[in-house]
Amino acid sequence: MFNLLDIKDPSFIKKLSISELKALAKDIRSFLIENISKTGGHLSSNLGVVELTIALYYVFDIDSTNLLFDVGHQSYVHKILTGRAKDFNTLRQFGGLSGYINRSESQYDIWESGHSSTSISALSGLMISQNDKRQIAIIGDSSLMNGVALEGLNFLGQMKKNNPIIILNDNKMGISKSVGALSSVFSKLRGSSFYLHFKAGCNKVFPKCFINVFHQIKRGLKGLIQTDNIFEDMGFDYYGPYDGNNIATLINLLKRIKERKEPVVLHVLTKKGKGYLPSENDVEGDFHGVGPFDIETGKPLKNDGTISISKVVSNYLVEKRKNLEFKVITPAMKSGAKLQEFAELYPNDFYDVGIAEEHAAVMSAGISLAKKNVVLLMYSTFAQRAYDQILNDISRQDLKVIIGIDRAGIVGEDGQTHQGIYDVAMFMAMPNIVVTMPKDDKEIIELFNYGFNQNHPFVIRYPRGNVSPKEIDPTLTCKFEWPILNEGNKGIVIGYGPNIDRISHLVSINNLDLMVVNARFIKPMDLDTLDNLFKLNLPIIVIEEVVSSGTLYHKILEYKEENNYNSHIYRHSFDSNTLIPHGKILDVYSHYGLSDEDLLNLLKEKMLS
Amino acid sequence: MFNLLDIKDPSFIKKLSISELKALAKDIRSFLIENISKTGGHLSSNLGVVELTIALYYVFDIDSTNLLFDVGHQSYVHKILTGRAKDFNTLRQFGGLSGYINRSESQYDIWESGHSSTSISALSGLMISQNDKRQIAIIGDSSLMNGVALEGLNFLGQMKKNNPIIILNDNKMGISKSVGALSSVFSKLRGSSFYLHFKAGCNKVFPKCFINVFHQIKRGLKGLIQTDNIFEDMGFDYYGPYDGNNIATLINLLKRIKERKEPVVLHVLTKKGKGYLPSENDVEGDFHGVGPFDIETGKPLKNDGTISISKVVSNYLVEKRKNLEFKVITPAMKSGAKLQEFAELYPNDFYDVGIAEEHAAVMSAGISLAKKNVVLLMYSTFAQRAYDQILNDISRQDLKVIIGIDRAGIVGEDGQTHQGIYDVAMFMAMPNIVVTMPKDDKEIIELFNYGFNQNHPFVIRYPRGNVSPKEIDPTLTCKFEWPILNEGNKGIVIGYGPNIDRISHLVSINNLDLMVVNARFIKPMDLDTLDNLFKLNLPIIVIEEVVSSGTLYHKILEYKEENNYNSHIYRHSFDSNTLIPHGKILDVYSHYGLSDEDLLNLLKEKMLS
Repeated sequence: MFNLLDIKDPSFIKKLSISELKALAKDIRSFLIENISKTGGHLSSNLGVVELTIALYYVFDIDSTNLLFDVGHQSYVHKILTGRAKDFNTLRQFGGLSGYINRSESQYDIWESGHSSTSISALSGLMISQNDKRQIAIIGDSSLMNGVALEGLNFLGQMKKNNPIIILNDNKMGISKSVGALSSVFSKLRGSSFYLHFKAGCNKVFPKCFINVFHQIKRGLKGLIQTDNIFEDMGFDYYGPYDGNNIATLINLLKRIKERKEPVVLHVLTKKGKGYLPSENDVEGDFHGVGPFDIETGKPLKNDGTISISKVVSNYLVEKRKNLEFKVITPAMKSGAKLQEFAELYPNDFYDVGIAEEHAAVMSAGISLAKKNVVLLMYSTFAQRAYDQILNDISRQDLKVIIGIDRAGIVGEDGQTHQGIYDVAMFMAMPNIVVTMPKDDKEIIELFNYGFNQNHPFVIRYPRGNVSPKEIDPTLTCKFEWPILNEGNKGIVIGYGPNIDRISHLVSINNLDLMVVNARFIKPMDLDTLDNLFKLNLPIIVIEEVVSSGTLYHKILEYKEENNYNSHIYRHSFDSNTLIPHGKILDVYSHYGLSDEDLLNLLKEKMLS
Repeated sequence: MFNLLDIKDPSFIKKLSISELKALAKDIRSFLIENISKTGGHLSSNLGVVELTIALYYVFDIDSTNLLFDVGHQSYVHKILTGRAKDFNTLRQFGGLSGYINRSESQYDIWESGHSSTSISALSGLMISQNDKRQIAIIGDSSLMNGVALEGLNFLGQMKKNNPIIILNDNKMGISKSVGALSSVFSKLRGSSFYLHFKAGCNKVFPKCFINVFHQIKRGLKGLIQTDNIFEDMGFDYYGPYDGNNIATLINLLKRIKERKEPVVLHVLTKKGKGYLPSENDVEGDFHGVGPFDIETGKPLKNDGTISISKVVSNYLVEKRKNLEFKVITPAMKSGAKLQEFAELYPNDFYDVGIAEEHAAVMSAGISLAKKNVVLLMYSTFAQRAYDQILNDISRQDLKVIIGIDRAGIVGEDGQTHQGIYDVAMFMAMPNIVVTMPKDDKEIIELFNYGFNQNHPFVIRYPRGNVSPKEIDPTLTCKFEWPILNEGNKGIVIGYGPNIDRISHLVSINNLDLMVVNARFIKPMDLDTLDNLFKLNLPIIVIEEVVSSGTLYHKILEYKEENNYNSHIYRHSFDSNTLIPHGKILDVYSHYGLSDEDLLNLLKEKMLS
């Protein structure tokens, strides 16, 4: 048994025998399962890359090598081998170990990403400016199909020196199942299992020089029996596919590749969730990002009977589809947005296009151009990737696309790179678009129906979180107005989303003499109500869980200035320089003035003192 | 001679013989050269697609076919054939014919883009929602290498019905020369000239059934002698390359492809600028988008001795590079940003990565990660494509990347899709970033040097426009402060960029009693100066040539509110719902309150009445 807690850096690996390396892999796997079952985290992808990470540190010298983990949530093994096993009990907790690559945690954390598919471009930059290091990117099959990764490949394939290495970590599935033509290209490559076994055998029996000859012969043969190699088309020296969970194979292979000067793609097949049966058998992606679970059964530890807000939306869409034709488009969020049922019931109306946010947005515009209803579902943080397409292709053309923005606001354990705090600033600058945020599950349905009944690009943003399931009439709709949730005489609170619902309850149970206004339409504003509010001449506070830039606060302030109103307006939102780390949502709330207690104190201080 | 002005729709084409079609092509070419020499516009790309556009309308029925022109600036022939020849004297003028696809101009204008590479995704959306039409996208070789186009191909290649057609219009050069691995893939395809001539011959001699047999044989052979076909890898039936300027070949080919059910890529080679020698011989892209020119010589009609502001920047970079090492990265703007000289002098420090804005931004982040200086140059409108990468990969990581934002503000003749009016709203929401705009050429240099001497992401935005060339000390720098350009007692004008310089002159020559403040640092603001301004208790007007969302006006308003200042603050900027059309910059200025006269009246009315 290795004491993983004692590891300072991966240099010790170089002295181990193959059987010791295998034992190390086993220990790491047990450690991961044990720890993640308590903290939650990305389990499957990390179980898949145990051997690969060990083999990389066996063959390459950490001080002269940059390992760039695409996305970064598959870097747990790397974290253990670079001295952070002892911190795994704090994984993804506030103030604890990040679930992603984090440069402030370790000198060996090179490239922070969070959003997929950037590693090849980042490697390109490092490669042309840092000659003394070997640059290696590890990227999943789904991530490789995103536009920026393909742009990166296109750039890198033409670089005939600086020996960059791309490791295609192919587990046949990203966050959702891989889709698209490239996916079937990978499939065909995988299918050449003759090579896979042949090569695996070779590596055991023959010395390195023979292997190189075989590689040359194989390349010659391939012209005859297999022409589907997009990587060689693009100028890479392609090695693969190989068994990415076989340490001996990997080490032989990496030693060979280490000598190459040309850009190399090494294609390895890894088993997602390897070594833990519930995770190996997981087809829906439940163990991709998982909460605390029971190791024996693989079942979640907590089951409080609630359902996610994403599920409220997907249930509504299933109901709505019974009476109205529409398409649902999502970039790789079939599982995350709980769309499996819709996909099964309406396979011809559902398109998970993979990690291709830009394509998803433009394709939605195309559907709307044909005068058909379309719902585009994406997380707030990933909508950033389709900024130009939502602005230029959807909004500028005033096309009716209903855009469901999931995980708006603080996202919790994923942290800094995933916070849904920029989308309001994004959308408010765009023409023609309507931007809304419902305060609860009922209003989610009301606003979706409102969206279906109008003719502009229509954003409905909703947070990560859970609610008690309840029966809601799926035909409910609402008016264009800002409802007054509480009446009061000392001041006015304006906000949107579940926060304003929470504030309404706080004001009620604490008998605060405050008016609470649900600004569920963020753009355009309900100016009739706003005029009435200003006429009361009371202090106003605008509470928003987003970065303060072009937000509701700014629009209200502008309206005040242009109409010479007098009410003082307080702002409660994030300064644009704020970087909000990972942690449970309630912990993050406590640190950024959004807990119930914080909000109560804020209202008392600003409005009632 | 055809009377092009009489054309109502392209149905007449179907009755013409091949020789009549050739005559039509000749007439269209003369018409384009004649008209564009007067109005300016996109010449080369349109001269290249004359035969292709005619052949498409010969073979396909316009009422059951959607032609999606990627980018759209190569749609002039389509405009002529759909009844708009008579409007070409107003091309790209205010109120005149758009230089791009414009749905309000014609029912035959299907997909507005302006930004490249969206046609395949838009086609995908139309295809899955509009079964009664044949969908055809025409996309250039450079556009196909952008991420969204590759995402689109990945999606479309797997669709085994609905017979979509992608026409790869390969002229070996986009806005700048094509770069990247895919470019060499196309090169190799082109190189199979045996096929090209063989096929061209075939089409003349053999009937269709034979052609199909040859196609099958070719596909069989290709496994032996040519494996580089990325399109077949991705599931498309690939036809090519063929001579895209040969009408007879194109018609035969399109007739055959019309019968196919599978997704097809038709690869045609067209000659950019064909039929006009100065344009055929243009290697620098001068005739890509051209101003009025003399037909005899190909020289610009106006040469007033000024240089573009882009050239001021590129001259500075050439000078600066003599004493400091840095890399310059640009996505396909080598020619537009006048970087040819830098590229020639420092080939190892210059990377035009093609139309790959996302890759360009992440690669710049990678260079900065290696502690090397890097300048990323892109147009404001195209920076929208790298929103997530600038936010997440550059700004969040607080990496020192100097981002030159060219064509900030009104861009003139390119119009709605190209206005540089969103970038301030974009950048203001981002962490760590410094956002600046210089008022003149001297300040451009001062701010670039300031940027090199600090350690954060640093945006310098500058407009499209020309200045008189002058000698400026390339080592000049400036302080972090808002200079007072004019002193005055009746009110305060705050703004940035050439507008504030212009206002300063207007205030001087008209003896207005106004203070004029150059807010060259937009984020963060010079709060010392701002405090002093507020203490004067004068009305303030903030003038910005951007969409009003999270702009300087909003930040100043917020500062006023938080500090209980009293000065009334006027806003002069674009409402977020404003869509600004094409036209000469001065004409657009006149219509949007930004002419000298407008500004003077504005100041008199708001500040001096």
